[in-house]
Amino acid sequence: MTDTIKVALLGAGNVGSQVARIFSEDSAVLKERIGAPVELIGIAVRDTAAKRHWDADPGLYTTDADALIDAADVVIELTGGIEPARTRILRALEAGKSVVSGNKALLAKHGVELQAAADKSGAQLSYEAAVAGAIPILRPLRDSLAGDTVTRVLGIMNGTTNYILDQMDTTGATFADALKDAQELGYAEADPTADVEGHDAASKAAIVASLAFHSDFTIDDVHVEGITAVSADDVAAADADGYVIKLLSVCERDGEGVNIRVAPTLIPRQHPLAGVHGAFNAVFVQAQNAGELMFYGPGAGGAPTASAVLGDFVSLARRLVLGGPGVPESSYAQLPATGLGDIISRYSVGMLVDDKLGVLANISRIFAEHGISVDSLRQSTPQDGAAQIRLVTHSAKDSDLRRAIAVIDGLDTVREIISVIRVESGK
Amino acid sequence: MTDTIKVALLGAGNVGSQVARIFSEDSAVLKERIGAPVELIGIAVRDTAAKRHWDADPGLYTTDADALIDAADVVIELTGGIEPARTRILRALEAGKSVVSGNKALLAKHGVELQAAADKSGAQLSYEAAVAGAIPILRPLRDSLAGDTVTRVLGIMNGTTNYILDQMDTTGATFADALKDAQELGYAEADPTADVEGHDAASKAAIVASLAFHSDFTIDDVHVEGITAVSADDVAAADADGYVIKLLSVCERDGEGVNIRVAPTLIPRQHPLAGVHGAFNAVFVQAQNAGELMFYGPGAGGAPTASAVLGDFVSLARRLVLGGPGVPESSYAQLPATGLGDIISRYSVGMLVDDKLGVLANISRIFAEHGISVDSLRQSTPQDGAAQIRLVTHSAKDSDLRRAIAVIDGLDTVREIISVIRVESGK
Repeated sequence: MTDTIKVALLGAGNVGSQVARIFSEDSAVLKERIGAPVELIGIAVRDTAAKRHWDADPGLYTTDADALIDAADVVIELTGGIEPARTRILRALEAGKSVVSGNKALLAKHGVELQAAADKSGAQLSYEAAVAGAIPILRPLRDSLAGDTVTRVLGIMNGTTNYILDQMDTTGATFADALKDAQELGYAEADPTADVEGHDAASKAAIVASLAFHSDFTIDDVHVEGITAVSADDVAAADADGYVIKLLSVCERDGEGVNIRVAPTLIPRQHPLAGVHGAFNAVFVQAQNAGELMFYGPGAGGAPTASAVLGDFVSLARRLVLGGPGVPESSYAQLPATGLGDIISRYSVGMLVDDKLGVLANISRIFAEHGISVDSLRQSTPQDGAAQIRLVTHSAKDSDLRRAIAVIDGLDTVREIISVIRVESGK
Repeated sequence: MTDTIKVALLGAGNVGSQVARIFSEDSAVLKERIGAPVELIGIAVRDTAAKRHWDADPGLYTTDADALIDAADVVIELTGGIEPARTRILRALEAGKSVVSGNKALLAKHGVELQAAADKSGAQLSYEAAVAGAIPILRPLRDSLAGDTVTRVLGIMNGTTNYILDQMDTTGATFADALKDAQELGYAEADPTADVEGHDAASKAAIVASLAFHSDFTIDDVHVEGITAVSADDVAAADADGYVIKLLSVCERDGEGVNIRVAPTLIPRQHPLAGVHGAFNAVFVQAQNAGELMFYGPGAGGAPTASAVLGDFVSLARRLVLGGPGVPESSYAQLPATGLGDIISRYSVGMLVDDKLGVLANISRIFAEHGISVDSLRQSTPQDGAAQIRLVTHSAKDSDLRRAIAVIDGLDTVREIISVIRVESGK
C-alpha cells in the first residue's frame, strides 16, 4: 500500500482537536515518516456546531461515525467512555482496520476483547495515549523490555491527584483547599471523583500490569483507595519522617501472581518518584536485568497526549505501508491477580490515644503479638488528655497488620485510628 | 517462519556473557514472547579458553565468526571497535540476516553504511544497547515520538564521567582523586581517555541526533570537550550559584540545521538532570507536542545492557516470525550539522585578575562592547594581589563570547582565564 492512508478521527475534545491540528499542520512530515500520504477524512462528533479547542475544516465534522469508520483505513478513537466507543472500535478492528485509542476506561475493562478482535483480523491496536499522556511507557514495556522480566512497576499515573498531594506537601494545604485550587487551575474536573477516588489511576494500572506481566488484567483486578481521606496531618507526619505521600500505582509479582493496587503511599524523599511535582507523571520500572528505569513527563494535556496518539499512528501506518501483520499481544503468562492479604509491606499508622501511662506499652504488645515490629514512633504533645501517635512498622503481612489494627481500635484507650498508609521503600 | 531462530553471538565480554546467560536461562520465556523457539548456536571469541563473566556451554565458543554468521538467522554483535565488527555486520546484513549491535563507536562512524545494507536486503538493524545501556531511548525516539517534532535532547550519556563529576560535586574531590576512585570501583578503565575526553558520549550523541532529527550524523559532526579541565574550584563556584556541572550531550535544532555538542555544562540544581547521581544516565527530550520527557536508568553494566540487547532481539525476532520487512530508517530530513559559532547560550566564566581598581570595570566594558551583558558576578577575597572572578553572562552568541574572552585574556591585569563553561537552562 502506497496509496493515501485515510484516517477517521472519533472525538474532537481536548486531545482530538490537537490530533486534528497536527494532521493539518504536519502532513508533509507525516508523509515522509510513513512513506505514504495521509489524509484525515473526517471527525465524528456529537454536535458538528460545537466550539472546539482547534477548528478543523468545517466540512470534516460529521455525526455519522459508522460511515466514517467504513470509509477509513485507520481509526483514531478519542471519545472516552465505554459505549459507543467499544462498538465502534470493534467495527473497525473486525473489518481489519487498525485502531489507535486513548480510552483507558475502555481498555482496562474490555482490552482483552478488543485485542482478540485485532489479532483475529491482523489489524493493529495501539493505545500509548491511554497511560501517562506523552510518556512512552507501553511501548518500552512491550518492546524495549521484551527480553527482560519485569518484577515491579511503581507509577504516578494521575496528574490531578499528584498536583493535589504536591500542594498539600509543599504548602501544608488541606485536601479540600488543594482540590479547589486544582479545579480553579483546570487540573481537576468539577466532579473530581474519577481522579481523587483512584479510578483513573486504576484503569492505567490494569493496562500497565497486563503488558508488564504478559497477562490479561482488568480494572476489577485492581485494589483501589483514593486520596480523599489523606489529611494535612498525615502529610506533615510523613514529612517529619522523611517521606512524601503519593497516589502510587503498584504492580508487582506476588508469589505465583501479580498484585495490582492504587493507594496513597509513603515513599522516601530521596526516591526518584518523590521529585515528581505538580501534574507530572512518572513510571518507575524494576526489571531483573535492566535494574531500575524511570520514565517522566506530562501525564495529560491536549498536545502531549496527541503526541502519543500520533506516535502510535505513525508506527502502525509504517507497518501498513511495509506490509505484514502487526505484532499481536503476548499474554502467554496469564498470571492471576492476588488479594491484598499476603502483601508484605511497611506501614505508617497514625492514631489518637488517651494520654495515660501504659497505653503505648499496650499497643506495642498487640503489634508484637501479631508478629509486627515497630521501626520508629513519635508521640505528639498531649492536648485535652489525648496524644497523637505516628509509627512506622517493619515489613508486615497486610492481613496481620489489619488484625492488629482491629484489636488496637477496640481498646478503650484508643480514641481513633487516624490513618494506615503503606510505605514503599522503592527496593 | 516458525522454525527455530538460530542466533550467533559475537563477543563474550561483560555484556556478551550476560546475553549468553539470558539465552540459557530464559529460553522458555523468549519462545513464548517471540512465537518460535530460539537457539544460541555459537559465540565467536578471540580465545575460546579465556575466562568469562559467565560460562556458556564450552562447545558454543568458536574463533570462526564468519562460519557462525553464515549458519545463523540473527547476529548479535557485542565485540566493540570498528573492525572486524563492521565487516562481519555487513556480511550478515547483506545476506538478509537481521543484526543487533551495541557498538556505539561503529554506529556513530559507519551507521549510514550499515543501515543502507539493512534497508537493501530488508534485514533489521537495531542498536538500543549502544546508547544509555538499559534505558529505552532509541525506540522512543524512533517510534513513540514518530509523530512529534523533537527540538532538543539533553543527555547524561556516560556513566564514568557522571560518577566523577558527581563525586567532585558531593565530596569536593579533585578530578584526579575522583578518577582514581572511579577506577578503583571499576567505573573507569585503566585508560580512561574515551570516557573523560567525551568520545564515548559523542558517539552516543551522534546516534541520538540522527534518530531525533531524521538525519545522518556521524561522530565527526559532534563538537567534543572532555572533563579533564574541570577543577574543584569550578565545581564549587557552580554550586555557589545554584548549578551543578554535568558532561552534557546536547542535540538541538539550530537555524536550518542541528547542533550536536558534548561538553561540561552548568545546569540548575532544580533541573531533573541535576538529580542524576553516580554512574546513572538520563536523557531529557523536548518535543513540540509532547513537551519535556525524561528517561532515567543504569547507563552501563553487563546485565542492564544485555536487557537492551534482548529487547531488540525479541522485537526483531517477532517480525521474522510474523513476516514482512523491518521498518527502514527515516533520515529524510538530512539536516546539516552546524558549527558552534552561532550557538546562543549563557556562559559561566572564571578568571584570575590583579586586585587593582578598574579591572572589573574594564572587563565589564569589553563584554558590553561585544554585546554581552553580565547576569551575576562574584569576586573572591584577594590573595597574593590576585582575585578570582566568577561571572555568569546573559545569553550570548558563542563567537561573540570567544572574541570577548580573547580580548580580556590579552589584558595585562588578567592573569588567567580559568574556565569558560556553557550554562543550559533546560528551557
